[in-house]
Amino acid sequence: MAEIETFENPHPKRNYIITHVAPEFTSVCPKTGQPDFGLIEIQYIPDKLCIELKSLKLYLQGYRNTGVFYEDVINRILDDLLAAASPRQMKVTGEFTPRGGMHSVVTAEFPEPSI
Amino acid sequence: MAEIETFENPHPKRNYIITHVAPEFTSVCPKTGQPDFGLIEIQYIPDKLCIELKSLKLYLQGYRNTGVFYEDVINRILDDLLAAASPRQMKVTGEFTPRGGMHSVVTAEFPEPSI
Amino acid sequence: MAEIETFENPHPKRNYIITHVAPEFTSVCPKTGQPDFGLIEIQYIPDKLCIELKSLKLYLQGYRNTGVFYEDVINRILDDLLAAASPRQMKVTGEFTPRGGMHSVVTAEFPEPSI
Amino acid sequence: MAEIETFENPHPKRNYIITHVAPEFTSVCPKTGQPDFGLIEIQYIPDKLCIELKSLKLYLQGYRNTGVFYEDVINRILDDLLAAASPRQMKVTGEFTPRGGMHSVVTAEFPEPSI
Amino acid sequence: MAEIETFENPHPKRNYIITHVAPEFTSVCPKTGQPDFGLIEIQYIPDKLCIELKSLKLYLQGYRNTGVFYEDVINRILDDLLAAASPRQMKVTGEFTPRGGMHSVVTAEFPEPSI
Amino acid sequence: MAEIETFENPHPKRNYIITHVAPEFTSVCPKTGQPDFGLIEIQYIPDKLCIELKSLKLYLQGYRNTGVFYEDVINRILDDLLAAASPRQMKVTGEFTPRGGMHSVVTAEFPEPSI
Amino acid sequence: MAEIETFENPHPKRNYIITHVAPEFTSVCPKTGQPDFGLIEIQYIPDKLCIELKSLKLYLQGYRNTGVFYEDVINRILDDLLAAASPRQMKVTGEFTPRGGMHSVVTAEFPEPSI
Amino acid sequence: MAEIETFENPHPKRNYIITHVAPEFTSVCPKTGQPDFGLIEIQYIPDKLCIELKSLKLYLQGYRNTGVFYEDVINRILDDLLAAASPRQMKVTGEFTPRGGMHSVVTAEFPEPSI
Amino acid sequence: MAEIETFENPHPKRNYIITHVAPEFTSVCPKTGQPDFGLIEIQYIPDKLCIELKSLKLYLQGYRNTGVFYEDVINRILDDLLAAASPRQMKVTGEFTPRGGMHSVVTAEFPEPSI
Amino acid sequence: MAEIETFENPHPKRNYIITHVAPEFTSVCPKTGQPDFGLIEIQYIPDKLCIELKSLKLYLQGYRNTGVFYEDVINRILDDLLAAASPRQMKVTGEFTPRGGMHSVVTAEFPEPSI
Repeated sequence: MAEIETFENPHPKRNYIITHVAPEFTSVCPKTGQPDFGLIEIQYIPDKLCIELKSLKLYLQGYRNTGVFYEDVINRILDDLLAAASPRQMKVTGEFTPRGGMHSVVTAEFPEPSI
Repeated sequence: MAEIETFENPHPKRNYIITHVAPEFTSVCPKTGQPDFGLIEIQYIPDKLCIELKSLKLYLQGYRNTGVFYEDVINRILDDLLAAASPRQMKVTGEFTPRGGMHSVVTAEFPEPSI
Repeated sequence: MAEIETFENPHPKRNYIITHVAPEFTSVCPKTGQPDFGLIEIQYIPDKLCIELKSLKLYLQGYRNTGVFYEDVINRILDDLLAAASPRQMKVTGEFTPRGGMHSVVTAEFPEPSI
Repeated sequence: MAEIETFENPHPKRNYIITHVAPEFTSVCPKTGQPDFGLIEIQYIPDKLCIELKSLKLYLQGYRNTGVFYEDVINRILDDLLAAASPRQMKVTGEFTPRGGMHSVVTAEFPEPSI
Repeated sequence: MAEIETFENPHPKRNYIITHVAPEFTSVCPKTGQPDFGLIEIQYIPDKLCIELKSLKLYLQGYRNTGVFYEDVINRILDDLLAAASPRQMKVTGEFTPRGGMHSVVTAEFPEPSI
Repeated sequence: MAEIETFENPHPKRNYIITHVAPEFTSVCPKTGQPDFGLIEIQYIPDKLCIELKSLKLYLQGYRNTGVFYEDVINRILDDLLAAASPRQMKVTGEFTPRGGMHSVVTAEFPEPSI
Repeated sequence: MAEIETFENPHPKRNYIITHVAPEFTSVCPKTGQPDFGLIEIQYIPDKLCIELKSLKLYLQGYRNTGVFYEDVINRILDDLLAAASPRQMKVTGEFTPRGGMHSVVTAEFPEPSI
Repeated sequence: MAEIETFENPHPKRNYIITHVAPEFTSVCPKTGQPDFGLIEIQYIPDKLCIELKSLKLYLQGYRNTGVFYEDVINRILDDLLAAASPRQMKVTGEFTPRGGMHSVVTAEFPEPSI
Repeated sequence: MAEIETFENPHPKRNYIITHVAPEFTSVCPKTGQPDFGLIEIQYIPDKLCIELKSLKLYLQGYRNTGVFYEDVINRILDDLLAAASPRQMKVTGEFTPRGGMHSVVTAEFPEPSI
Repeated sequence: MAEIETFENPHPKRNYIITHVAPEFTSVCPKTGQPDFGLIEIQYIPDKLCIELKSLKLYLQGYRNTGVFYEDVINRILDDLLAAASPRQMKVTGEFTPRGGMHSVVTAEFPEPSI
């Protein structure tokens, strides 16, 4: 995967919310070898670092020929972005296009919702 | 009904949310014998197991020639999925197409909402 | 008005939500004698009884030639359904089509919202 | 302004919600003399009195040739309706069409939201 | 930047909400020199002063040939409006059009949300 | 049925098009006795007479308790309006809401389309 | 298949258009045995006979457990309806839901379009 | 009515199409005295003159307190614009908001459509 | 590229229209190496052969890692499908997602439109 | 203005249609000095040359600080693109955002439509 680059948060004293939406996500189903398609939404409150947009695009393109399940990829993106930018809060959502007549959404966040 | 298969949750330490939407559900009205149509949405936080998509599709297809009321089928799907995957939380919703000029929605969840 | 019939709740141990939407409601304005049109939404958590759909349709058709104000009819439907099915919770909403360039929505529920 | 008429609330024992939406509101900008256009939404829980629809329409038409700012007119409508009907709760919203490439929304309510 | 003008709040005793939406915002990307486009939404509860619409439009037009990042511009608009009008509460949101296949939203508010 | 009233066409020298859309049409199914609902669109080029709106509304309300098939009612409306106003051209369309999971549209016009 | 019933055209002297839309069509893929779903639209100009709605619904339900390709079923429906009602013109369209990430539409008509 | 101003067509050698849409038109019903609202669309191919936008806006505002029927106002606007700008072709359409549960559209054009 | 498979047209005597829509098309920009995304629509009248859906999906997936311009890929798909199935008529359309703030549509057909 | 670059049409023997849509067009009103915003759509059948996308983007950005009327800019874009690429057919459309409560569309094409 391409490295996720960051830049210094220009307003670190304030808690504010950044959302990036990538509607052109594609990976490969590890079971069938067929391409999967979806939209990834990343929402976070930055701490010292903001995520640089172009490196985020290249990072997400890194899944283009990777075999990975829906449930796995969303957690891996969350893990990688937490490691790169240490945000105060972050939520990653994937909305995947229909397969077998069903479509799926997976959401993971930091800190976890209490249940 | 086809058996609901599961696979090991790849990120069991985190509470995260999985949603599957099946817009092609059909069963038979037990009173009139006419087909009913609807959309089933299943949302859950997995514990040790995730629900395998293809077996879920086949399980839902098992209602195709079954006579069952709206209020009953949603509770039965919830019961069967709870038994198969023991999720931390789960909600099942059915949105049924119009009959007699009215349309209906039924929702059941675990744990139950307090009232 | 036609009698509202009920059937035994197939899953009385669980609190779950049933919604019926009737977009073809019509009554008569008691002031002008002109027909009024609207959509009625009924949402409830059943206790021992569920509302039978066909009798609900006939009950609502009973207002077709009845003169009644928006504010009144929604409360009367709520009263009649509470009497027939004794649900744990119920909300009745009416969305009425424009008259004099304005459209109106009226909502009543049991138990009442605290204010 | 035309007087706002009321009628006796047919179900005063219950807290229920009435909404009226008037999408054809027009007044005059006090600065430029140009007409302004917007949608007014009035939502309330009645106490002893309900607002009569036709008189509400005529009251709102009274602003047709009146010069008044957005921020002012919403508060004045709220004041006049509170005086006429003494509701338990009321919220007035105005959504105004674009001027200078921007559009505006103003909302006032009784009792005030705590901040 | 043009100065943000204000006028006296006509109803200072009441907490009420004003929203202005400017869908024609444009600035310049400081990295590539290419124009960026977006929608700015400003929502506030006024204290003693309201923001005058025409001066707000001219203030936002002041970014037309300014190089500034998404994360920065929203915080700067919030800072400038807080300084000009001292509102009781304010939220500024920017929804930016797609770049590199992704679109972004940034939101900052006063007082900050607790996290 | 109420009589369809007319008024003198104010611009008889020009061929121009008038469309009236009545989304609140209701009649009764002659087979089941159940109410039917639909939208009626009337489009015409007037000759010497225009159709008066209020009388058109009352004429259409005349079908409220009349048993009539979709295919029949559209042709009858066309016949009655042709008789009342002798337009140069006229088209009547009915879009009926779903019955038995199907919805229907019927269109008749004068002069007939060549086939 | 259920027999398609007809009734006498009430206005046989006029060429007018009838459209029936059945959004709940389902059949079985002859290759995979999986259910297919789609919307069928039937548009015709009747000659001496109109198609009776309830028998049309039952006829279309006859495909519920039939294995048939998209290209075939639309032509078969057209053939059967032409045989039953001998309309002056008829067009049958099927819009099928996604399979393998693609969705399909098939249209056949009488008389055929010249190419 | 305000005078419709024009400016010299900058490209008179080419037939090209200009459309102006005014969604804030309001006049007064000559029968009831109540305000009417609608959207006016003006489409034309200019000859030597183009219609100046601000004067068009003021011209249309001139109907604000004028009593005029739908069928009449569209033809009058067409007559006035033809007199002011002598376009090669012009079409004027008015889409009026619902009155008595019906909404109306009127269209007039130069040269007239052949029928 | 995968071979496009065909099957025998089940109704070769009739001219009828088949449309396949593939919203998950992706290729690579030959200039920047970045992925492109789009929707491909294929519409044809079959002669002796119909295009088999699964092979069409695999054929389109063959562009996933191919560098090709929008203008080129649509013509190549048309050429390949004409060679495989010899339809009586065919149109191929590509709608591509935004790049640099612009989105593009390319359409090619057989036989060519006369100009 | 930036020069419009071209590349060789890869399929010059076929008449096919290319459409580019630029929703982020902005120029300056020559009368008020205020910015105008709009969407430009360019549709053409190429002859020997295709228009290169990036240079088209830069060409359109060249109007960012240029004072020009709607009627003029669309004809100038058409003239410049005809000169650069000599297409067999071309149509340029501009849809401009509201000013003074009205929005405008201007369309010019080569060859001109006959009137």
